[in-house]
Amino acid sequence: MLVTQLSKRFELEHPIISAPMATAATGELAYAVSHAGGLGLIGGGYGDIEWIRRQFDTKQETEVGCGLITWALDEKPDALEQTLALKPKALWLSFGDPEPYAKMIKDSGTALICQVQTVKDAQHALYCGADIIVAQGSEAGGHCETRSTMTLVPEVADIIAKSSPETLLCAAGGIADGRGLAAALMLGADGVVMGSRLWASVEANVPNTMQQAALDATGDHTIRTRVMDIARELNWPERYSAHVLKNAFTEKWHNNIDGLLGQAKQESAKWKAGWETGDVEAANTFVGESTGLIDEIEPVKNIIQDIVLEAECLLNQTWVY
Amino acid sequence: MLVTQLSKRFELEHPIISAPMATAATGELAYAVSHAGGLGLIGGGYGDIEWIRRQFDTKQETEVGCGLITWALDEKPDALEQTLALKPKALWLSFGDPEPYAKMIKDSGTALICQVQTVKDAQHALYCGADIIVAQGSEAGGHCETRSTMTLVPEVADIIAKSSPETLLCAAGGIADGRGLAAALMLGADGVVMGSRLWASVEANVPNTMQQAALDATGDHTIRTRVMDIARELNWPERYSAHVLKNAFTEKWHNNIDGLLGQAKQESAKWKAGWETGDVEAANTFVGESTGLIDEIEPVKNIIQDIVLEAECLLNQTWVY
Repeated sequence: MLVTQLSKRFELEHPIISAPMATAATGELAYAVSHAGGLGLIGGGYGDIEWIRRQFDTKQETEVGCGLITWALDEKPDALEQTLALKPKALWLSFGDPEPYAKMIKDSGTALICQVQTVKDAQHALYCGADIIVAQGSEAGGHCETRSTMTLVPEVADIIAKSSPETLLCAAGGIADGRGLAAALMLGADGVVMGSRLWASVEANVPNTMQQAALDATGDHTIRTRVMDIARELNWPERYSAHVLKNAFTEKWHNNIDGLLGQAKQESAKWKAGWETGDVEAANTFVGESTGLIDEIEPVKNIIQDIVLEAECLLNQTWVY
Repeated sequence: MLVTQLSKRFELEHPIISAPMATAATGELAYAVSHAGGLGLIGGGYGDIEWIRRQFDTKQETEVGCGLITWALDEKPDALEQTLALKPKALWLSFGDPEPYAKMIKDSGTALICQVQTVKDAQHALYCGADIIVAQGSEAGGHCETRSTMTLVPEVADIIAKSSPETLLCAAGGIADGRGLAAALMLGADGVVMGSRLWASVEANVPNTMQQAALDATGDHTIRTRVMDIARELNWPERYSAHVLKNAFTEKWHNNIDGLLGQAKQESAKWKAGWETGDVEAANTFVGESTGLIDEIEPVKNIIQDIVLEAECLLNQTWVY
């Protein structure tokens, strides 16, 4: 068994957390991850509390957490208290300042997970009392920034070691197999967050066409861009872009933001229609660079078992003679 | 001892290659790396054969290799034969198509190292007969592309395993300590290429002011941009940008390429003058995201010993119970 401070402290069989991916990470996905020995998170996203409530299922014999997009919470502050009332095992905040919300989460007895994309934000998350810091690299699917997992994780590990050694650290971005899990532990993480690999599972709420596009793609076919958020009319702060598969839409607009803004209404309608029908050329497939490491859509249980077994084999190998 | 296919095949004490960084990677640096048990590479850069000749030293009791920028070789094809005449242990090509040069290198009996930034280029490098493929992520210092080390290395490892298992794989980008070395081995690499960490050494040809700026910076202070190449009047293909420390110059021009082109002559003169004097605000410090992991300028021997020791400790640890 692969035992880390994360698995000990959160009583998990495996040091794996599923990313709270908006729309894809339903209750079905999150409970499957927790049943498989990890910690599943519901993708609470922009704070639609009715949708979030439908994902929680008190009859399950395991617990899940929930993630919220921090800047969206600024526009909908009640969503935090309403989500905490559902007794998530952990509350995850990402993409914005967690400070206004940290006290309410900590006071409720819920573990606070802060996902960060820079060293500066990691320092602030420690100040806010995060129980787990997730250092997310630019290789991740969906929204992220420019720092990469390979350097952000050890740099944040050094800061945690110096100023708050009890805080746990997870690596996110580009981890889709046992090699990535083992590498993350070497870099100083107590566990990993997996998004794309679990997005490409039977339980995820993702159109088959988009999962198929991800299976067909190498990591070269991905792009980080802001054009989808313009099409979706979402107020994402400029510092964040999203990792998706390149398609006709990104090819047309990525280098012509002004042109897109000039035709926002019709382009937005086309994008949204594509999203509804799973049209991978009209709308975008939200997956990270690790798409090139994913060959099959499988049930969550198999995915997690295979990853842990591969990591254990690597870590048990004799490397030093 | 850390033994891999790379260290066995190239008879190295440690599976570490130094990046052939233009201007920084002199003969002094390269021989220091080879003496310390790795494989040192001279940064042949744009193919100034007189400079390259001065770096080779046949009186040394160890061998070094040499790197050349592939697109620059297209403009100066004689530089390859002239460099091969100096009997490098390996010839490294990066940033361009190695195909026109591969045969001459292989025929000379010199090992061919191809650095690649995408899966597509890795496939082409295998076709060209590369002995070592270096998968370089966007976290690297100096020139690179968008793919990250964390995903590019395992994806290329899978291609090598399927189509050319004898070819060796090294990871480059973001590796500056034993954690990075151990992580790279988990990801499927046979060894690592280190640039920034060795750039920050006593033996590297780097102004003290720039090394000091790197010690003071976190990885957050880096940027990938093309503005330095415009200032240096170098014909870098558009797909490549370079990782440097942010400064007044990048802040002013990164989002205003047209403005920079409009004032190219005077801005170029200012940048080049800053480079000559080591003025870190006028010219740029070429270092990658791992700058945040570097705390001291040390002799190469100490750097390599510490990194190997740290990696060995991590790899010897008990992870599975």
